[in-house]
Amino acid sequence: MSPATALALLEFDSAGVATGHRLVDPERPILRVTELAATRGDGIFETIGLFAARPIKLERHLDRMQRSARMLDFPTQDLSVWANAVHAVAEAMGPVDESFVKLVLSRGVEGSGIPTGWAYGEQHPSYEATRATGLRVVLLDRGYRQDVARTSPWLLQGAKTISYAINRASLREAQRRGADDVVFVSSDGFLLEGPTSTLVLRHGHRLRTPRSDLGILVGTTQAELFEWAVDEGYECSSGLLTADDLVSADAAWLVSSLRLAAPIRAVDGIEKAVDATLTASFTAHLRALAV
Amino acid sequence: MSPATALALLEFDSAGVATGHRLVDPERPILRVTELAATRGDGIFETIGLFAARPIKLERHLDRMQRSARMLDFPTQDLSVWANAVHAVAEAMGPVDESFVKLVLSRGVEGSGIPTGWAYGEQHPSYEATRATGLRVVLLDRGYRQDVARTSPWLLQGAKTISYAINRASLREAQRRGADDVVFVSSDGFLLEGPTSTLVLRHGHRLRTPRSDLGILVGTTQAELFEWAVDEGYECSSGLLTADDLVSADAAWLVSSLRLAAPIRAVDGIEKAVDATLTASFTAHLRALAV
Repeated sequence: MSPATALALLEFDSAGVATGHRLVDPERPILRVTELAATRGDGIFETIGLFAARPIKLERHLDRMQRSARMLDFPTQDLSVWANAVHAVAEAMGPVDESFVKLVLSRGVEGSGIPTGWAYGEQHPSYEATRATGLRVVLLDRGYRQDVARTSPWLLQGAKTISYAINRASLREAQRRGADDVVFVSSDGFLLEGPTSTLVLRHGHRLRTPRSDLGILVGTTQAELFEWAVDEGYECSSGLLTADDLVSADAAWLVSSLRLAAPIRAVDGIEKAVDATLTASFTAHLRALAV
Repeated sequence: MSPATALALLEFDSAGVATGHRLVDPERPILRVTELAATRGDGIFETIGLFAARPIKLERHLDRMQRSARMLDFPTQDLSVWANAVHAVAEAMGPVDESFVKLVLSRGVEGSGIPTGWAYGEQHPSYEATRATGLRVVLLDRGYRQDVARTSPWLLQGAKTISYAINRASLREAQRRGADDVVFVSSDGFLLEGPTSTLVLRHGHRLRTPRSDLGILVGTTQAELFEWAVDEGYECSSGLLTADDLVSADAAWLVSSLRLAAPIRAVDGIEKAVDATLTASFTAHLRALAV
């Protein structure tokens, strides 16, 4: 059976603000070749996980979308319109177990001055095996200094843009090295993030993540987990972390909205212990957010 | 009257190599929302200038497309198939004066394993006024060291990818600063290129351009102009250039396939002399290539 899918096209006013949506056939081509999403990667996105057709931490995703929109000089969006589109797509897919809705806001057809936007939903296979087995990661240089988001905002570091060719190339490089995923490192030696995830380290009862002003995405899953972990008695902080911190950590994860907390089981070929207990607690907490 | 446009869709075999094309209605949406060009900027492109419906330096563009394809792990393309698509689109547009054909090769619909490719042609307005007036440019940090293409090939520097959000953001930053265009500078202080152009400096009878191993595109227009200029008695070379070289140059240009040789008339607000004579010679030579 083919997976459930659904698609809502956003409607925009002349100022470029989404005002509503309509459901359309998800198989139907809707983008022209002059669409700047397709020719310039000029847009932003969010991928929202759904359990049993209910979106997880939708508000965090929409807040981050607004932040990305601001960084790319898009008009401020009415987030309730985007939330409605997410719910409509979730409902159209029906009560599938695990799925996602991807929101895209792009500059639109070249010369039109009006954005294109859509909410696309699709059922996805379970990541349970990945969460059990863990990920082999490699450290790859991202080429930028840790302070680049502050010195050079036009490089859009920290915005979730659809210009993801480098992230995709990095994952191919990881595969060539026999690994599953990547942890990016700044040119001056600080741990950053995965191509589609946030890094979390555990040393005893301390959880740490790279500081969000290092030109990385504010992790919605990491933020959610840290709020929970503080209540559970963990000491949580963000900071400047190095490869040594990753190697010496009792456990480490790449956390994201669909795969949830994926434990790191090897770094550049060096095996690492997997914390199955905390991984299970992370997963249970995130799944419980589907309300 | 609306500008002439035309569109050819490439057809691919199961190995991902283009084998032919068919002309389709350029107004018709042909891309799905799961197309990786539109969701990940995962593809490459070339923009070929046409005068009187004849492509300029087509072979240089196709060679560079093959190079970009290799850097992004696409299958080696049969360039004659792409050349045929360019000619078909040029013919379909008819004998308009100035136009372009944009070639895009993308990873295709997610999960399909088959690329998407198209050749889109459009008439464009004349850039004669820009070539006469010149460009006000700002120097902007590109964040990478000059050696990044050698140390970190997964960053795809030197490939012409459709992940152009940073280039677009840099142009918006230039506009905010009252300028028209950008010259990128490496994090260690070397001149690189424009977001859509190659930098050329003139000191007396010497023409210089940044070395192509600095993570920049091999400029098809610059290469063509240097071949011509050597015959005209200029000494042409590429090297490591700094902002001081740009400031002290007798003249400077951003050269590209549609705008051709656009003289730089100001750098970060400091006025610069425009060499109208050599600009005119450059333009005449490039236009004469339409054979």
